[in-house]
Amino acid sequence: MKKLMHELIKMTDDALKIYLNNQKGHPARIYKAMQYSVFAGGKRLRPVLCLMAAKACGLSYKDALPAACALEMIHTYSLIHDDLPAMDNDDLRRGRPTCHKKFDEATAILAGDALLTKAFETALSATVNKNTHKTALAAAMEIAKGAGAEGMVGGQMADIENEGKKHTKKALFYIHGHKTGSLITASVVSGAVLAGASPEKVKLFRTFGEKIGLAFQIADDILDETGDEKKMGKKLRKDSGAGKLTWPAVFGLENSRKKAYKLLFEAKEILGKIDNTAGLCALADMFVNRTH
Amino acid sequence: MKKLMHELIKMTDDALKIYLNNQKGHPARIYKAMQYSVFAGGKRLRPVLCLMAAKACGLSYKDALPAACALEMIHTYSLIHDDLPAMDNDDLRRGRPTCHKKFDEATAILAGDALLTKAFETALSATVNKNTHKTALAAAMEIAKGAGAEGMVGGQMADIENEGKKHTKKALFYIHGHKTGSLITASVVSGAVLAGASPEKVKLFRTFGEKIGLAFQIADDILDETGDEKKMGKKLRKDSGAGKLTWPAVFGLENSRKKAYKLLFEAKEILGKIDNTAGLCALADMFVNRTH
Repeated sequence: MKKLMHELIKMTDDALKIYLNNQKGHPARIYKAMQYSVFAGGKRLRPVLCLMAAKACGLSYKDALPAACALEMIHTYSLIHDDLPAMDNDDLRRGRPTCHKKFDEATAILAGDALLTKAFETALSATVNKNTHKTALAAAMEIAKGAGAEGMVGGQMADIENEGKKHTKKALFYIHGHKTGSLITASVVSGAVLAGASPEKVKLFRTFGEKIGLAFQIADDILDETGDEKKMGKKLRKDSGAGKLTWPAVFGLENSRKKAYKLLFEAKEILGKIDNTAGLCALADMFVNRTH
Repeated sequence: MKKLMHELIKMTDDALKIYLNNQKGHPARIYKAMQYSVFAGGKRLRPVLCLMAAKACGLSYKDALPAACALEMIHTYSLIHDDLPAMDNDDLRRGRPTCHKKFDEATAILAGDALLTKAFETALSATVNKNTHKTALAAAMEIAKGAGAEGMVGGQMADIENEGKKHTKKALFYIHGHKTGSLITASVVSGAVLAGASPEKVKLFRTFGEKIGLAFQIADDILDETGDEKKMGKKLRKDSGAGKLTWPAVFGLENSRKKAYKLLFEAKEILGKIDNTAGLCALADMFVNRTH
């Protein structure tokens, strides 16, 4: 499993390098900023999820790479914009200066915009032959829905709106389900859809994605409370300090752990109904049992 | 012509209202901010260009609306981000407070991100029947290329990089060709591509788009020097004050006017080679002869 993970991460990184290569005749600074943030040691969880889901549905890893890379570009853009002074105002990300600290705010805003745009250009290039226009389009649509106002951006908006407010479970569910969950779900579903999976199978993958997405965010909240700043490469305990809604803040640390494991169990139960999902099963474990 | 323009603008606005409608269960603030900026009295030049190009290639206006609306969403997101304090730091846009002044910076960043994402979701929905996946995908790809690092965002990056530097013609051509030109070209080309136009016809439309895109930006620079602030609804003579590269600054006002008319003439010459382009011809005139 570790070997497969490394292979898929390398495939993703190699493809990202090509997609984000400096284009001659265009400002070098925009590519430098995009590359700086994309190649900052991200775990590539979303691309690997997408690649594994696509493979489980019969598509080759190679043919799923455009969607996989698009997801990483979107994840990275969201971090760049999230770190901006007007948003979370973070100086460090994965142990290095954030994009606006390394470059400047204007460049960081534009690099995020360029990555988001490049993501769709990349996802739409997944047309191996003329039969795949339909699936490439459907996968890009899943990614757009997961990333936008009804997905990730909606979650970020709700997160900001609820800062310092009274903690409600409804708000917590919405924020966790959307801020992180939507793009993780889209990672799984876009892989399946790109591979032309049946609606029934897509539905199973969607539920699996929703469960590990939420488990991932809860694990993230727990790490924010209990993790090691050096290992994580970013400032911790900022969320609870800023009065942000976190799972441990509402349910307590022990109940949060229980919930994460329950979700993991349910997610793996769903995988039991789909063939060729051993890799995804191991990946789901990593989602919850990570230390950084 | 005026009647047709009004009709197309109304069709676009009606469709935009549907696409940007508040989605139940998601944060109202994000939709409010998106709607605030999209419905701020924009001239809808990009959507109308797209609709007219599509119609000239045999597609109905209705079937081209998704691409047309996507272009307006991208144009609007670029204005929202461009107005941010870290970018142009503008308080007024079309006579009203800019998005970050009306809401706040974080909301403006997210509203721009959400509009850019929604643009692709919308463009990809242009699949009237199963034969149109290919054209919808190709149109969305044109839009992505026109909007990204090799298009509009590249132009904005170059614009910022060249602020206060010695004016070079090369930089001026790049900035004008990309900051405004790329998305205007993409407006025309995406319409043609969505309609399934031949490569030869698409090429003609592309050259037409490039010429009116540049003419439009030169006219914009001229208006910035000579226009009326009240009519324009924004602060003028900021660009030249900030040491930004403008056409009049490099070539003088009179030569700039001549250049704009030359480009307009050449653009209309190209239209002479394509059937059903009377509307586009009149629109091109408006691009150069506008007073606000």
